[in-house]
Amino acid sequence: MKTVLIKGLGLIGSSLARAIKQAHPDYQVLASDINQQALQYAITNQIIDQAVDGFDEGNQADVIILASPVSQIVKDLRALAHLNLKNDVIVTDVGSTKQTVMQAAQELTAQGISFVGGHPMAGSHLTGVQAGRADLIKGAYYFLMRDSQPAARHAIQDLLSGTQAKWLELTASEHDQLVAQLSHIPHVLAAALVEQAQQTCGEKIKVAAGGFKSVTRIAAADPTMWSAILLNNQQPILNQLHDYIDRLTEVSQLIEKGDRQQLFDFFAQAQQIRWGLDDQKG
Amino acid sequence: MKTVLIKGLGLIGSSLARAIKQAHPDYQVLASDINQQALQYAITNQIIDQAVDGFDEGNQADVIILASPVSQIVKDLRALAHLNLKNDVIVTDVGSTKQTVMQAAQELTAQGISFVGGHPMAGSHLTGVQAGRADLIKGAYYFLMRDSQPAARHAIQDLLSGTQAKWLELTASEHDQLVAQLSHIPHVLAAALVEQAQQTCGEKIKVAAGGFKSVTRIAAADPTMWSAILLNNQQPILNQLHDYIDRLTEVSQLIEKGDRQQLFDFFAQAQQIRWGLDDQKG
Repeated sequence: MKTVLIKGLGLIGSSLARAIKQAHPDYQVLASDINQQALQYAITNQIIDQAVDGFDEGNQADVIILASPVSQIVKDLRALAHLNLKNDVIVTDVGSTKQTVMQAAQELTAQGISFVGGHPMAGSHLTGVQAGRADLIKGAYYFLMRDSQPAARHAIQDLLSGTQAKWLELTASEHDQLVAQLSHIPHVLAAALVEQAQQTCGEKIKVAAGGFKSVTRIAAADPTMWSAILLNNQQPILNQLHDYIDRLTEVSQLIEKGDRQQLFDFFAQAQQIRWGLDDQKG
Repeated sequence: MKTVLIKGLGLIGSSLARAIKQAHPDYQVLASDINQQALQYAITNQIIDQAVDGFDEGNQADVIILASPVSQIVKDLRALAHLNLKNDVIVTDVGSTKQTVMQAAQELTAQGISFVGGHPMAGSHLTGVQAGRADLIKGAYYFLMRDSQPAARHAIQDLLSGTQAKWLELTASEHDQLVAQLSHIPHVLAAALVEQAQQTCGEKIKVAAGGFKSVTRIAAADPTMWSAILLNNQQPILNQLHDYIDRLTEVSQLIEKGDRQQLFDFFAQAQQIRWGLDDQKG
Protein backbone atom coordinates (compact mmCIF):
# COMPACT_ATOMS: atom_id res chain seq x y z
CA MET A 1 0.00 0.00 0.00
CA LYS A 2 1.37 3.34 -1.03
CA THR A 3 0.22 6.92 -0.65
CA VAL A 4 0.17 9.20 -3.70
CA LEU A 5 -0.38 12.95 -3.61
CA ILE A 6 -1.51 14.64 -6.84
CA LYS A 7 -1.30 18.42 -7.00
CA GLY A 8 -3.59 19.68 -9.75
CA LEU A 9 -6.69 17.64 -10.50
CA GLY A 10 -7.55 18.72 -14.05
CA LEU A 11 -7.76 16.56 -17.16
CA ILE A 12 -4.31 14.98 -16.74
CA GLY A 13 -4.12 14.79 -12.95
CA SER A 14 -7.55 13.21 -12.64
CA SER A 15 -6.83 10.77 -15.48
CA LEU A 16 -3.68 9.62 -13.67
CA ALA A 17 -5.66 9.30 -10.43
CA ARG A 18 -8.17 7.07 -12.18
CA ALA A 19 -5.41 4.96 -13.77
CA ILE A 20 -3.67 4.52 -10.40
CA LYS A 21 -6.90 3.38 -8.74
CA GLN A 22 -7.54 0.95 -11.59
CA ALA A 23 -4.14 -0.76 -11.39
CA HIS A 24 -3.65 -0.39 -7.62
CA PRO A 25 -7.03 -0.34 -5.87
CA ASP A 26 -5.34 -0.49 -2.45
CA TYR A 27 -3.24 2.67 -2.93
CA GLN A 28 -4.27 5.79 -1.08
CA VAL A 29 -4.73 8.74 -3.47
CA LEU A 30 -4.73 12.28 -2.02
CA ALA A 31 -5.18 15.36 -4.17
CA SER A 32 -5.15 19.13 -3.95
CA ASP A 33 -6.47 21.73 -6.36
CA ILE A 34 -7.38 25.41 -6.21
CA ASN A 35 -10.81 24.37 -7.49
CA GLN A 36 -12.82 22.97 -4.55
CA GLN A 37 -15.60 21.71 -6.80
CA ALA A 38 -13.10 19.59 -8.72
CA LEU A 39 -11.99 17.96 -5.47
CA GLN A 40 -15.57 17.40 -4.38
CA TYR A 41 -16.41 15.79 -7.73
CA ALA A 42 -13.36 13.53 -7.43
CA ILE A 43 -14.30 12.34 -3.96
CA THR A 44 -17.95 11.79 -4.83
CA ASN A 45 -16.90 9.71 -7.85
CA GLN A 46 -14.23 7.80 -5.91
CA ILE A 47 -11.46 9.09 -8.17
CA ILE A 48 -9.45 10.06 -5.07
CA ASP A 49 -9.63 9.09 -1.40
CA GLN A 50 -8.99 12.41 0.24
CA ALA A 51 -8.76 16.11 -0.63
CA VAL A 52 -5.95 18.11 0.97
CA ASP A 53 -4.74 21.70 0.90
CA GLY A 54 -1.61 22.36 -1.20
CA PHE A 55 1.13 19.98 0.00
CA ASP A 56 -0.56 19.15 3.33
CA GLU A 57 0.05 15.47 4.14
CA GLY A 58 3.02 15.66 1.72
CA ASN A 59 5.18 14.05 4.38
CA GLN A 60 2.96 10.92 4.14
CA ALA A 61 3.39 10.58 0.37
CA ASP A 62 5.48 7.90 -1.33
CA VAL A 63 4.91 9.61 -4.67
CA ILE A 64 4.06 13.24 -5.42
CA ILE A 65 2.68 14.06 -8.87
CA LEU A 66 2.76 17.69 -10.00
CA ALA A 67 -0.04 18.05 -12.54
CA SER A 68 -0.48 21.81 -12.92
CA PRO A 69 0.64 23.97 -15.88
CA VAL A 70 4.43 24.33 -16.21
CA SER A 71 4.64 27.76 -14.54
CA GLN A 72 2.98 26.34 -11.41
CA ILE A 73 5.08 23.15 -11.50
CA VAL A 74 8.21 25.30 -11.41
CA LYS A 75 6.94 27.07 -8.27
CA ASP A 76 5.86 23.77 -6.69
CA LEU A 77 9.30 22.20 -7.20
CA ARG A 78 10.94 25.13 -5.43
CA ALA A 79 8.42 24.92 -2.59
CA LEU A 80 8.95 21.18 -2.16
CA ALA A 81 12.68 21.77 -1.54
CA HIS A 82 11.67 23.47 1.72
CA LEU A 83 9.12 20.94 2.96
CA ASN A 84 9.44 17.91 5.16
CA LEU A 85 9.14 14.84 2.87
CA LYS A 86 9.79 11.12 3.16
CA ASN A 87 13.44 10.30 2.35
CA ASP A 88 12.47 7.85 -0.36
CA VAL A 89 9.64 9.90 -1.89
CA ILE A 90 9.58 10.08 -5.69
CA VAL A 91 8.46 13.37 -7.20
CA THR A 92 7.27 13.52 -10.80
CA ASP A 93 5.50 16.05 -13.03
CA VAL A 94 3.48 16.16 -16.26
CA GLY A 95 4.68 19.51 -17.66
CA SER A 96 4.75 19.94 -21.42
CA THR A 97 8.30 21.37 -21.52
CA LYS A 98 11.14 19.85 -19.58
CA GLN A 99 14.37 21.90 -19.46
CA THR A 100 12.75 24.62 -17.36
CA VAL A 101 11.27 21.99 -15.06
CA MET A 102 14.53 20.04 -14.65
CA GLN A 103 16.31 23.25 -13.69
CA ALA A 104 13.66 24.15 -11.14
CA ALA A 105 14.07 20.66 -9.62
CA GLN A 106 17.79 21.09 -8.89
CA GLU A 107 17.41 22.38 -5.34
CA LEU A 108 15.17 19.42 -4.54
CA THR A 109 17.36 16.74 -6.11
CA ALA A 110 20.47 18.26 -4.45
CA GLN A 111 18.88 17.05 -1.19
CA GLY A 112 18.83 13.47 -2.49
CA ILE A 113 15.12 13.47 -3.42
CA SER A 114 14.28 11.52 -6.58
CA PHE A 115 12.68 13.58 -9.31
CA VAL A 116 11.46 12.03 -12.57
CA GLY A 117 10.47 14.62 -15.18
CA GLY A 118 7.50 13.30 -17.14
CA HIS A 119 5.22 14.37 -19.97
CA PRO A 120 2.22 12.38 -21.17
CA MET A 121 1.40 13.44 -24.77
CA ALA A 122 -2.31 13.50 -24.12
CA GLY A 123 -4.34 15.53 -26.54
CA SER A 124 -7.91 16.48 -25.90
CA HIS A 125 -10.00 19.54 -26.50
CA LEU A 126 -11.64 18.84 -23.17
CA THR A 127 -10.38 20.06 -19.83
CA GLY A 128 -11.11 19.49 -16.17
CA VAL A 129 -11.70 16.63 -13.76
CA GLN A 130 -14.95 15.49 -15.39
CA ALA A 131 -13.22 14.97 -18.76
CA GLY A 132 -10.48 12.75 -17.28
CA ARG A 133 -10.39 9.04 -18.15
CA ALA A 134 -8.19 6.18 -16.96
CA ASP A 135 -7.36 5.44 -20.61
CA LEU A 136 -6.87 9.07 -21.74
CA ILE A 137 -3.29 8.41 -22.85
CA LYS A 138 -3.72 4.76 -23.79
CA GLY A 139 -1.50 4.08 -26.81
CA ALA A 140 -0.01 7.60 -26.68
CA TYR A 141 3.56 8.40 -25.64
CA TYR A 142 4.53 9.20 -22.09
CA PHE A 143 8.01 10.72 -21.96
CA LEU A 144 10.26 10.19 -18.94
CA MET A 145 13.49 12.13 -18.53
CA ARG A 146 16.69 10.08 -18.49
CA ASP A 147 18.28 12.44 -15.97
CA SER A 148 16.78 10.45 -13.09
CA GLN A 149 17.50 7.16 -11.31
CA PRO A 150 16.32 4.10 -13.29
CA ALA A 151 14.67 2.65 -10.17
CA ALA A 152 12.58 5.82 -9.76
CA ARG A 153 11.52 5.70 -13.44
CA HIS A 154 10.47 2.08 -13.08
CA ALA A 155 8.47 2.92 -9.98
CA ILE A 156 6.60 5.62 -11.93
CA GLN A 157 5.94 3.23 -14.83
CA ASP A 158 4.57 0.66 -12.41
CA LEU A 159 2.44 3.25 -10.58
CA LEU A 160 0.97 4.47 -13.89
CA SER A 161 0.72 1.11 -15.69
CA GLY A 162 -3.06 1.59 -15.78
CA THR A 163 -2.65 4.39 -18.30
CA GLN A 164 -1.46 1.86 -20.94
CA ALA A 165 0.81 4.60 -22.29
CA LYS A 166 3.88 3.89 -24.40
CA TRP A 167 6.98 4.92 -22.43
CA LEU A 168 9.88 6.73 -24.05
CA GLU A 169 13.03 7.85 -22.24
CA LEU A 170 14.67 11.07 -23.40
CA THR A 171 16.94 13.80 -22.12
CA ALA A 172 15.18 17.07 -21.33
CA SER A 173 16.87 18.76 -24.27
CA GLU A 174 15.89 15.96 -26.68
CA HIS A 175 12.34 16.20 -25.34
CA ASP A 176 12.04 19.93 -25.79
CA GLN A 177 13.35 19.78 -29.36
CA LEU A 178 10.98 16.91 -30.16
CA VAL A 179 7.86 18.68 -28.90
CA ALA A 180 8.98 21.98 -30.48
CA GLN A 181 9.12 20.17 -33.82
CA LEU A 182 6.10 17.88 -33.58
CA SER A 183 3.71 20.00 -31.54
CA HIS A 184 4.73 23.63 -31.01
CA ILE A 185 5.86 24.55 -34.54
CA PRO A 186 2.72 23.02 -36.13
CA HIS A 187 0.56 25.23 -33.88
CA VAL A 188 2.46 28.34 -35.00
CA LEU A 189 2.16 27.36 -38.68
CA ALA A 190 -1.57 26.68 -38.46
CA ALA A 191 -2.32 29.92 -36.62
CA ALA A 192 -0.26 32.00 -39.07
CA LEU A 193 -2.00 30.33 -42.01
CA VAL A 194 -5.57 31.04 -40.90
CA GLU A 195 -4.68 34.67 -40.19
CA GLN A 196 -3.10 35.08 -43.61
CA ALA A 197 -6.08 33.38 -45.28
CA GLN A 198 -8.55 35.62 -43.47
CA GLN A 199 -6.65 38.69 -44.59
CA THR A 200 -6.21 37.51 -48.20
CA CYS A 201 -9.64 35.98 -48.81
CA GLY A 202 -11.95 37.91 -46.50
CA GLU A 203 -15.31 36.19 -46.36
CA LYS A 204 -14.26 33.92 -49.24
CA ILE A 205 -12.20 31.96 -46.70
CA LYS A 206 -15.45 29.95 -46.45
CA VAL A 207 -14.64 28.16 -49.72
CA ALA A 208 -11.77 26.38 -47.95
CA ALA A 209 -11.99 22.63 -48.49
CA GLY A 210 -11.01 19.65 -46.34
CA GLY A 211 -7.26 20.05 -46.85
CA PHE A 212 -7.18 23.59 -45.46
CA LYS A 213 -9.42 22.61 -42.58
CA SER A 214 -7.20 19.68 -41.68
CA VAL A 215 -4.02 21.79 -41.77
CA THR A 216 -5.55 24.53 -39.61
CA ARG A 217 -7.59 22.42 -37.16
CA ILE A 218 -5.16 23.02 -34.28
CA ALA A 219 -5.37 26.79 -34.79
CA ALA A 220 -8.49 26.53 -32.62
CA ALA A 221 -6.34 25.65 -29.58
CA ASP A 222 -6.40 27.64 -26.33
CA PRO A 223 -4.43 30.92 -26.77
CA THR A 224 -3.49 31.23 -23.08
CA MET A 225 -1.94 27.78 -23.03
CA TRP A 226 -0.15 28.22 -26.34
CA SER A 227 1.35 31.65 -25.70
CA ALA A 228 2.72 30.20 -22.43
CA ILE A 229 4.13 27.12 -24.16
CA LEU A 230 5.99 29.20 -26.75
CA LEU A 231 7.73 31.15 -23.99
CA ASN A 232 8.46 28.04 -21.90
CA ASN A 233 10.24 26.41 -24.83
CA GLN A 234 11.65 29.53 -26.41
CA GLN A 235 15.03 28.43 -27.79
CA PRO A 236 14.11 25.04 -29.30
CA ILE A 237 11.10 26.66 -31.00
CA LEU A 238 13.17 29.55 -32.34
CA ASN A 239 15.77 27.15 -33.75
CA GLN A 240 13.15 25.06 -35.53
CA LEU A 241 11.19 28.08 -36.72
CA HIS A 242 14.26 29.70 -38.28
CA ASP A 243 15.17 26.43 -39.98
CA TYR A 244 11.61 26.11 -41.27
CA ILE A 245 11.69 29.65 -42.70
CA ASP A 246 14.92 28.71 -44.52
CA ARG A 247 13.18 25.66 -45.98
CA LEU A 248 10.25 27.74 -47.26
CA THR A 249 12.69 30.22 -48.77
CA GLU A 250 14.38 27.36 -50.65
CA VAL A 251 11.04 26.11 -51.97
CA SER A 252 10.11 29.61 -53.10
CA GLN A 253 13.41 29.75 -55.04
CA LEU A 254 12.58 26.44 -56.75
CA ILE A 255 9.18 27.83 -57.78
CA GLU A 256 10.80 31.03 -59.01
CA LYS A 257 13.33 29.08 -61.10
CA GLY A 258 10.59 26.76 -62.36
CA ASP A 259 12.61 23.73 -61.23
CA ARG A 260 10.03 21.02 -61.81
CA GLN A 261 12.35 18.12 -60.96
CA GLN A 262 13.39 19.50 -57.57
CA LEU A 263 9.79 20.41 -56.73
CA PHE A 264 8.76 16.88 -57.64
CA ASP A 265 11.50 15.51 -55.35
CA PHE A 266 10.32 17.84 -52.57
CA PHE A 267 6.74 16.53 -52.74
CA ALA A 268 7.80 12.92 -53.38
CA GLN A 269 10.01 12.85 -50.29
CA ALA A 270 7.26 14.39 -48.18
CA GLN A 271 4.78 11.81 -49.47
CA GLN A 272 7.10 8.94 -48.49
CA ILE A 273 7.62 10.30 -44.98
CA ARG A 274 3.92 10.97 -44.45
CA TRP A 275 2.96 7.49 -45.64
CA GLY A 276 5.45 6.04 -43.14
CA LEU A 277 3.73 7.93 -40.35
CA ASP A 278 0.34 6.39 -41.04
CA ASP A 279 1.81 2.88 -40.96
CA GLN A 280 2.95 3.36 -37.40
CA LYS A 281 -0.43 3.20 -35.74
CA GLY A 282 -1.38 1.64 -32.43
CA MET B 1 -31.86 17.56 -76.44
CA LYS B 2 -28.25 18.68 -76.45
CA THR B 3 -24.96 17.05 -77.29
CA VAL B 4 -22.08 17.33 -74.84
CA LEU B 5 -18.49 16.30 -75.58
CA ILE B 6 -16.23 15.64 -72.61
CA LYS B 7 -12.48 15.40 -73.28
CA GLY B 8 -10.81 13.57 -70.40
CA LEU B 9 -12.86 10.97 -68.58
CA GLY B 10 -11.07 10.70 -65.24
CA LEU B 11 -12.46 11.39 -61.77
CA ILE B 12 -13.83 14.83 -62.60
CA GLY B 13 -14.87 14.30 -66.23
CA SER B 14 -16.74 11.10 -65.44
CA SER B 15 -18.41 12.66 -62.38
CA LEU B 16 -19.69 15.51 -64.57
CA ALA B 17 -20.90 12.97 -67.15
CA ARG B 18 -22.86 11.15 -64.47
CA ALA B 19 -24.32 14.41 -63.12
CA ILE B 20 -25.38 15.49 -66.64
CA LYS B 21 -27.12 12.16 -67.28
CA GLN B 22 -28.88 12.40 -63.93
CA ALA B 23 -30.34 15.88 -64.52
CA HIS B 24 -30.79 15.56 -68.29
CA PRO B 25 -31.39 11.91 -69.23
CA ASP B 26 -32.17 12.91 -72.82
CA TYR B 27 -28.84 14.66 -73.47
CA GLN B 28 -26.32 12.92 -75.66
CA VAL B 29 -22.93 12.58 -73.90
CA LEU B 30 -19.84 11.85 -76.00
CA ALA B 31 -16.39 11.44 -74.49
CA SER B 32 -12.78 10.96 -75.50
CA ASP B 33 -9.81 9.84 -73.44
CA ILE B 34 -6.31 8.47 -74.11
CA ASN B 35 -7.31 5.52 -71.91
CA GLN B 36 -9.51 3.17 -73.99
CA GLN B 37 -10.43 1.06 -70.98
CA ALA B 38 -11.87 4.14 -69.26
CA LEU B 39 -14.10 4.77 -72.29
CA GLN B 40 -15.15 1.13 -72.41
CA TYR B 41 -16.03 1.20 -68.70
CA ALA B 42 -18.05 4.39 -69.19
CA ILE B 43 -20.07 2.93 -72.05
CA THR B 44 -20.68 -0.38 -70.30
CA ASN B 45 -21.94 1.47 -67.24
CA GLN B 46 -24.02 3.94 -69.26
CA ILE B 47 -22.05 6.91 -67.98
CA ILE B 48 -21.67 8.13 -71.58
CA ASP B 49 -23.47 7.36 -74.84
CA GLN B 50 -20.56 7.23 -77.25
CA ALA B 51 -16.76 7.17 -77.26
CA VAL B 52 -14.95 9.35 -79.80
CA ASP B 53 -11.36 10.09 -80.71
CA GLY B 54 -10.01 13.49 -79.58
CA PHE B 55 -12.37 16.19 -80.82
CA ASP B 56 -14.08 13.98 -83.45
CA GLU B 57 -17.78 14.88 -83.59
CA GLY B 58 -16.80 18.20 -81.97
CA ASN B 59 -18.83 19.98 -84.68
CA GLN B 60 -21.97 18.26 -83.29
CA ALA B 61 -21.40 19.46 -79.72
CA ASP B 62 -23.47 22.16 -78.00
CA VAL B 63 -21.10 22.07 -75.05
CA ILE B 64 -17.46 20.94 -74.90
CA ILE B 65 -15.99 20.19 -71.47
CA LEU B 66 -12.19 20.04 -71.16
CA ALA B 67 -11.49 17.78 -68.19
CA SER B 68 -7.78 16.96 -68.49
CA PRO B 69 -4.93 18.37 -66.39
CA VAL B 70 -4.21 22.09 -66.98
CA SER B 71 -1.24 21.51 -69.33
CA GLN B 72 -3.47 19.47 -71.66
CA ILE B 73 -6.38 21.92 -71.37
CA VAL B 74 -4.07 24.69 -72.61
CA LYS B 75 -3.17 22.60 -75.68
CA ASP B 76 -6.81 21.65 -76.26
CA LEU B 77 -7.97 25.29 -76.21
CA ARG B 78 -5.38 26.17 -78.87
CA ALA B 79 -6.43 23.17 -80.97
CA LEU B 80 -10.14 24.09 -80.71
CA ALA B 81 -9.40 27.49 -82.26
CA HIS B 82 -8.57 25.66 -85.50
CA LEU B 83 -11.51 23.25 -85.59
CA ASN B 84 -14.92 23.49 -87.13
CA LEU B 85 -17.40 24.05 -84.27
CA LYS B 86 -21.04 25.08 -83.90
CA ASN B 87 -21.36 28.88 -83.78
CA ASP B 88 -23.21 28.78 -80.48
CA VAL B 89 -21.09 26.09 -78.82
CA ILE B 90 -20.04 26.76 -75.21
CA VAL B 91 -16.59 25.56 -74.19
CA THR B 92 -15.72 25.11 -70.52
CA ASP B 93 -12.89 23.51 -68.53
CA VAL B 94 -12.22 22.17 -65.03
CA GLY B 95 -8.54 23.20 -64.64
CA SER B 96 -7.25 23.97 -61.15
CA THR B 97 -5.57 27.26 -62.16
CA LYS B 98 -7.30 29.83 -64.32
CA GLN B 99 -5.10 32.68 -65.56
CA THR B 100 -3.03 30.35 -67.79
CA VAL B 101 -6.23 28.80 -69.11
CA MET B 102 -7.96 32.12 -69.82
CA GLN B 103 -4.91 33.26 -71.79
CA ALA B 104 -4.84 30.06 -73.81
CA ALA B 105 -8.53 30.60 -74.65
CA GLN B 106 -7.99 34.02 -76.25
CA GLU B 107 -7.57 32.76 -79.82
CA LEU B 108 -10.81 30.81 -79.46
CA THR B 109 -12.88 33.58 -77.91
CA ALA B 110 -11.55 36.06 -80.50
CA GLN B 111 -13.58 34.02 -82.99
CA GLY B 112 -16.76 34.68 -81.01
CA ILE B 113 -16.84 31.26 -79.31
CA SER B 114 -18.09 31.32 -75.69
CA PHE B 115 -15.58 30.06 -73.14
CA VAL B 116 -16.44 29.71 -69.45
CA GLY B 117 -13.42 28.93 -67.27
CA GLY B 118 -14.47 26.60 -64.47
CA HIS B 119 -12.95 24.82 -61.50
CA PRO B 120 -14.85 22.39 -59.28
CA MET B 121 -13.06 22.17 -55.90
CA ALA B 122 -13.44 18.42 -55.70
CA GLY B 123 -11.07 16.69 -53.36
CA SER B 124 -10.58 12.97 -53.38
CA HIS B 125 -7.61 10.70 -52.99
CA LEU B 126 -9.18 8.51 -55.65
CA THR B 127 -8.65 8.92 -59.37
CA GLY B 128 -10.12 7.55 -62.58
CA VAL B 129 -13.48 6.88 -64.14
CA GLN B 130 -14.47 4.18 -61.66
CA ALA B 131 -14.08 6.58 -58.72
CA GLY B 132 -16.35 9.22 -60.27
CA ARG B 133 -19.74 9.94 -58.69
CA ALA B 134 -22.63 12.18 -59.73
CA ASP B 135 -22.45 13.81 -56.28
CA LEU B 136 -18.63 14.06 -56.08
CA ILE B 137 -18.75 17.84 -55.64
CA LYS B 138 -22.11 18.07 -53.90
CA GLY B 139 -21.90 20.89 -51.36
CA ALA B 140 -18.41 21.90 -52.56
CA TYR B 141 -17.59 25.06 -54.49
CA TYR B 142 -17.55 25.21 -58.28
CA PHE B 143 -15.84 28.38 -59.47
CA LEU B 144 -16.87 30.03 -62.74
CA MET B 145 -14.82 32.85 -64.23
CA ARG B 146 -16.60 36.20 -64.55
CA ASP B 147 -14.75 36.96 -67.78
CA SER B 148 -17.45 35.17 -69.80
CA GLN B 149 -21.00 35.91 -70.97
CA PRO B 150 -23.61 35.56 -68.22
CA ALA B 151 -25.85 33.51 -70.52
CA ALA B 152 -23.04 31.01 -71.10
CA ARG B 153 -22.37 30.72 -67.34
CA HIS B 154 -26.07 30.08 -66.70
CA ALA B 155 -26.12 27.41 -69.39
CA ILE B 156 -23.18 25.64 -67.67
CA GLN B 157 -24.91 25.89 -64.29
CA ASP B 158 -28.04 24.38 -65.75
CA LEU B 159 -26.12 21.63 -67.55
CA LEU B 160 -24.28 20.70 -64.33
CA SER B 161 -27.17 21.22 -61.88
CA GLY B 162 -26.97 17.51 -61.05
CA THR B 163 -23.63 18.07 -59.30
CA GLN B 164 -25.41 20.04 -56.54
CA ALA B 165 -22.27 22.18 -56.32
CA LYS B 166 -22.22 25.68 -54.83
CA TRP B 167 -21.45 28.18 -57.58
CA LEU B 168 -19.09 31.10 -57.07
CA GLU B 169 -18.17 33.65 -59.71
CA LEU B 170 -14.67 35.10 -59.64
CA THR B 171 -12.14 36.71 -61.93
CA ALA B 172 -9.28 34.43 -62.97
CA SER B 173 -6.84 36.45 -60.90
CA GLU B 174 -9.09 36.32 -57.79
CA HIS B 175 -9.43 32.59 -58.34
CA ASP B 176 -5.72 31.93 -58.61
CA GLN B 177 -4.96 33.92 -55.48
CA LEU B 178 -7.74 32.15 -53.60
CA VAL B 179 -6.53 28.64 -54.46
CA ALA B 180 -2.90 29.65 -53.88
CA GLN B 181 -3.89 30.68 -50.37
CA LEU B 182 -6.38 27.98 -49.45
CA SER B 183 -4.97 24.99 -51.29
CA HIS B 184 -1.48 25.42 -52.77
CA ILE B 185 0.30 27.14 -49.84
CA PRO B 186 -1.06 24.60 -47.31
CA HIS B 187 0.42 21.78 -49.41
CA VAL B 188 3.83 23.47 -49.41
CA LEU B 189 3.70 24.05 -45.64
CA ALA B 190 2.70 20.46 -44.87
CA ALA B 191 5.40 18.97 -47.12
CA ALA B 192 8.11 21.23 -45.67
CA LEU B 193 7.02 20.34 -42.14
CA VAL B 194 7.20 16.54 -42.53
CA GLU B 195 10.63 16.83 -44.14
CA GLN B 196 11.92 19.00 -41.33
CA ALA B 197 10.43 16.67 -38.71
CA GLN B 198 12.03 13.63 -40.34
CA GLN B 199 15.41 15.33 -40.32
CA THR B 200 15.10 16.64 -36.74
CA CYS B 201 13.50 13.63 -35.08
CA GLY B 202 14.68 10.68 -37.16
CA GLU B 203 12.73 7.58 -36.16
CA LYS B 204 11.24 9.48 -33.20
CA ILE B 205 8.92 11.18 -35.69
CA LYS B 206 6.69 8.23 -34.79
CA VAL B 207 5.74 9.90 -31.49
CA ALA B 208 3.82 12.54 -33.46
CA ALA B 209 0.28 12.87 -32.13
CA GLY B 210 -3.03 13.75 -33.79
CA GLY B 211 -2.26 17.45 -34.24
CA PHE B 212 0.87 16.82 -36.30
CA LYS B 213 -0.89 14.16 -38.34
CA SER B 214 -3.78 16.49 -39.10
CA VAL B 215 -1.47 19.34 -40.17
CA THR B 216 0.59 17.09 -42.44
CA ARG B 217 -2.16 14.85 -43.88
CA ILE B 218 -2.05 16.56 -47.30
CA ALA B 219 1.71 16.01 -47.53
CA ALA B 220 0.75 12.56 -48.84
CA ALA B 221 -0.65 14.13 -52.03
CA ASP B 222 0.55 13.17 -55.53
CA PRO B 223 3.98 14.78 -56.23
CA THR B 224 3.52 14.90 -60.02
CA MET B 225 0.27 16.81 -59.70
CA TRP B 226 1.57 19.18 -57.05
CA SER B 227 4.86 20.09 -58.69
CA ALA B 228 2.83 20.93 -61.84
CA ILE B 229 0.32 23.03 -59.86
CA LEU B 230 3.08 25.12 -58.24
CA LEU B 231 4.45 25.99 -61.68
CA ASN B 232 1.02 26.66 -63.18
CA ASN B 233 0.23 29.18 -60.45
CA GLN B 234 3.71 30.50 -59.90
CA GLN B 235 3.21 34.19 -59.13
CA PRO B 236 0.19 34.03 -56.79
CA ILE B 237 1.92 31.24 -54.83
CA LEU B 238 5.19 33.17 -54.60
CA ASN B 239 3.37 36.28 -53.36
CA GLN B 240 1.55 34.36 -50.63
CA LEU B 241 4.61 32.34 -49.68
CA HIS B 242 6.77 35.43 -49.22
CA ASP B 243 4.04 37.06 -47.15
CA TYR B 244 3.76 33.89 -45.05
CA ILE B 245 7.52 33.84 -44.43
CA ASP B 246 7.26 37.46 -43.23
CA ARG B 247 4.51 36.45 -40.82
CA LEU B 248 6.58 33.61 -39.36
CA THR B 249 9.52 35.99 -38.99
CA GLU B 250 7.29 38.36 -37.00
CA VAL B 251 6.13 35.54 -34.72
CA SER B 252 9.72 34.45 -34.15
CA GLN B 253 10.53 38.02 -33.08
CA LEU B 254 7.65 37.97 -30.59
CA ILE B 255 8.98 34.70 -29.14
CA GLU B 256 12.48 36.14 -28.97
CA LYS B 257 11.24 39.26 -27.16
CA GLY B 258 9.07 37.15 -24.86
CA ASP B 259 6.03 39.24 -25.78
CA ARG B 260 3.32 37.17 -24.10
CA GLN B 261 0.49 39.60 -24.83
CA GLN B 262 1.14 39.76 -28.58
CA LEU B 263 1.58 35.98 -28.75
CA PHE B 264 -1.72 35.58 -26.92
CA ASP B 265 -3.36 37.95 -29.43
CA PHE B 266 -1.84 35.96 -32.31
CA PHE B 267 -3.32 32.67 -31.08
CA ALA B 268 -6.60 34.26 -29.96
CA GLN B 269 -7.21 35.79 -33.38
CA ALA B 270 -6.39 32.49 -35.09
CA GLN B 271 -8.78 30.66 -32.78
CA GLN B 272 -11.62 33.06 -33.64
CA ILE B 273 -11.07 32.69 -37.37
CA ARG B 274 -10.79 28.90 -37.20
CA TRP B 275 -13.97 28.64 -35.13
CA GLY B 276 -15.77 30.72 -37.76
CA LEU B 277 -14.70 28.24 -40.42
CA ASP B 278 -16.30 25.29 -38.69
CA ASP B 279 -19.60 27.12 -38.38
CA GLN B 280 -19.85 27.49 -42.13
CA LYS B 281 -20.67 23.91 -42.97
CA GLY B 282 -22.99 22.52 -45.57
